[in-house]
Amino acid sequence: MPKSKIQNRFVRRRQSAKPKIPPAAWARIALFAMDVDGVLTDGTIHVSAGGAEAKTFSVLDGLGLVRLAAAGVLAAWISGRPSGATTARAAELKIPHLIQGRNDKLAALRELAAQLRLDPAQIAYMGDDDIDAPAIAWAGIGVTVPAAMPSALAAAGHVTARAAGRGAVREICDLILASRGMENE
Amino acid sequence: MPKSKIQNRFVRRRQSAKPKIPPAAWARIALFAMDVDGVLTDGTIHVSAGGAEAKTFSVLDGLGLVRLAAAGVLAAWISGRPSGATTARAAELKIPHLIQGRNDKLAALRELAAQLRLDPAQIAYMGDDDIDAPAIAWAGIGVTVPAAMPSALAAAGHVTARAAGRGAVREICDLILASRGMENE
Amino acid sequence: MPKSKIQNRFVRRRQSAKPKIPPAAWARIALFAMDVDGVLTDGTIHVSAGGAEAKTFSVLDGLGLVRLAAAGVLAAWISGRPSGATTARAAELKIPHLIQGRNDKLAALRELAAQLRLDPAQIAYMGDDDIDAPAIAWAGIGVTVPAAMPSALAAAGHVTARAAGRGAVREICDLILASRGMENE
Amino acid sequence: MPKSKIQNRFVRRRQSAKPKIPPAAWARIALFAMDVDGVLTDGTIHVSAGGAEAKTFSVLDGLGLVRLAAAGVLAAWISGRPSGATTARAAELKIPHLIQGRNDKLAALRELAAQLRLDPAQIAYMGDDDIDAPAIAWAGIGVTVPAAMPSALAAAGHVTARAAGRGAVREICDLILASRGMENE
Repeated sequence: MPKSKIQNRFVRRRQSAKPKIPPAAWARIALFAMDVDGVLTDGTIHVSAGGAEAKTFSVLDGLGLVRLAAAGVLAAWISGRPSGATTARAAELKIPHLIQGRNDKLAALRELAAQLRLDPAQIAYMGDDDIDAPAIAWAGIGVTVPAAMPSALAAAGHVTARAAGRGAVREICDLILASRGMENE
Repeated sequence: MPKSKIQNRFVRRRQSAKPKIPPAAWARIALFAMDVDGVLTDGTIHVSAGGAEAKTFSVLDGLGLVRLAAAGVLAAWISGRPSGATTARAAELKIPHLIQGRNDKLAALRELAAQLRLDPAQIAYMGDDDIDAPAIAWAGIGVTVPAAMPSALAAAGHVTARAAGRGAVREICDLILASRGMENE
Repeated sequence: MPKSKIQNRFVRRRQSAKPKIPPAAWARIALFAMDVDGVLTDGTIHVSAGGAEAKTFSVLDGLGLVRLAAAGVLAAWISGRPSGATTARAAELKIPHLIQGRNDKLAALRELAAQLRLDPAQIAYMGDDDIDAPAIAWAGIGVTVPAAMPSALAAAGHVTARAAGRGAVREICDLILASRGMENE
Repeated sequence: MPKSKIQNRFVRRRQSAKPKIPPAAWARIALFAMDVDGVLTDGTIHVSAGGAEAKTFSVLDGLGLVRLAAAGVLAAWISGRPSGATTARAAELKIPHLIQGRNDKLAALRELAAQLRLDPAQIAYMGDDDIDAPAIAWAGIGVTVPAAMPSALAAAGHVTARAAGRGAVREICDLILASRGMENE
């Protein structure tokens, strides 16, 4: 069934006006860095009466990130809010670079790039809020989600079809893997 | 990308018939008071077998409220239902005025206004249910959400594009900040 | 703002083909009985690793049921699955008749009607699944939700605009109260 | 009310281009095997600060699986991720074959088929991700959900109208039961 035949609430009906990013650009990506809330989740947090916090992640994203690691592509999660749920999920997926408590996303990303000796063209960054916009603009490939804040949408070169927390990160993993001829492996 | 190009389930497709509130009115707001359930959440509560209760808040709203406080605008949460989850979230965001267990929202809001020596024109109030409608009508700017009860929709001068618990409060924070030339700061 | 101007995911865009139930029929209702899962919730249950179960209820529904009780209309919850979350929520809302573990909904409803000496015309029943359909058909006013099973949709005389767990029960409370001239009180 | 009149977010608006599977094929099914995440749930997991994990299941699906067992049709859950929530839900529904920790879904399914002495034509398999696609293609009836990955959509002979975790599994149960003349029993 052609993808265009599928209509559901996770897939945007009208494609973005952004020019398509060529596979060669995806193939250069050695680090896929991303925000957590609003990217790996739908931007909500579940708060219990005692103040404990839970988050909702996607199994689709998880499989994408595991495959990406197997293909030798690094992943980084950069979050403004320290969160036990984020730490637990990152540990389960063995995310090599987990950075929390940083609202200066671009500074954190540049520090990581320097440490890994990577150029912006080797980095994809995905975020959804104003504090992500500079990092989205700086990275070789800047990605955002359909429900992102206007500044993130303006900065991004690619907007996912799937919603945040419902496979948006998987889409980017699949684009990186496909550019290396490793789709669905 | 123009905002009109983005279609997703969080953004209403047809704009409200309400006349647009001018930036000068937003710039007068010194207190942003709001209901909790159905405004800062989607109006649902998660109940466990033992009766413990959790709620789902938005990180987008959280960042908006933190910025509003930094800009010197007061915030108040006025809820009919006492809730540990609400107390915990308010503490995390350092909300200066947390009022729970009051179904007479307008009376609670007027008491707070008197205590703060504020006129209605300096107050924005946001709610979604019948018991919020008088406070929405009284405040200088009365706000509601797309899925609100008819009385709240009728009373409001502004209806958010985003759904409750998915960035509706952030939208109002951003309008207040933008009217002061402090958007995205 | 006219209700027809509001478009969101909680409100069906096309109205049902069912003839409208007259206010006089709503005014006769002395007992509003309903299924729990898929009516007061969206039909999902949250299961933790240890098997503990939580459910998601609507604050809109809660206020409607509290008002209905204040107006002297009885409420009953009839659920096939015994659940601590249901018991906790029923206790919070002081639901006078809580019946769990009964898949023979019609038999349970008729027993309650006999005990309360009520005729079918004095009873509204709301359910979403096949096992609810006989009770929906028997009650004076049979109600279901947009996402109900086909048998429930076929049996019902009224389909709510709002989704289950997102204010569908509130809608019925408001119709009963409005028929008595007590809307929004 | 004809089903075509009902519009809501759980029902796809445009039907799939797939040819309809005849009742005789459904009537041959003796084993309904399925993936868990993204089929019996919407593909999300709720992670708490301590790393505990919860999942959200549908009561509609539960009733379908109970009826299927009563009709003598076997069920199997085959999941790549071991999960206490899955184990708990499978126990509640008395699922006879629970297989966890297997990403090689087709191999696991073929082993089970051999053990049960069943041909592919007697087996329906339902999954949503790439690792499910070979099993979907191998089974007599291969099923997927609207929000599935492209490989699963391509492999499937039937795409459910309802979303995963919101009654998609119930739909298949009802098709199997209807083919045996046991619908709604």
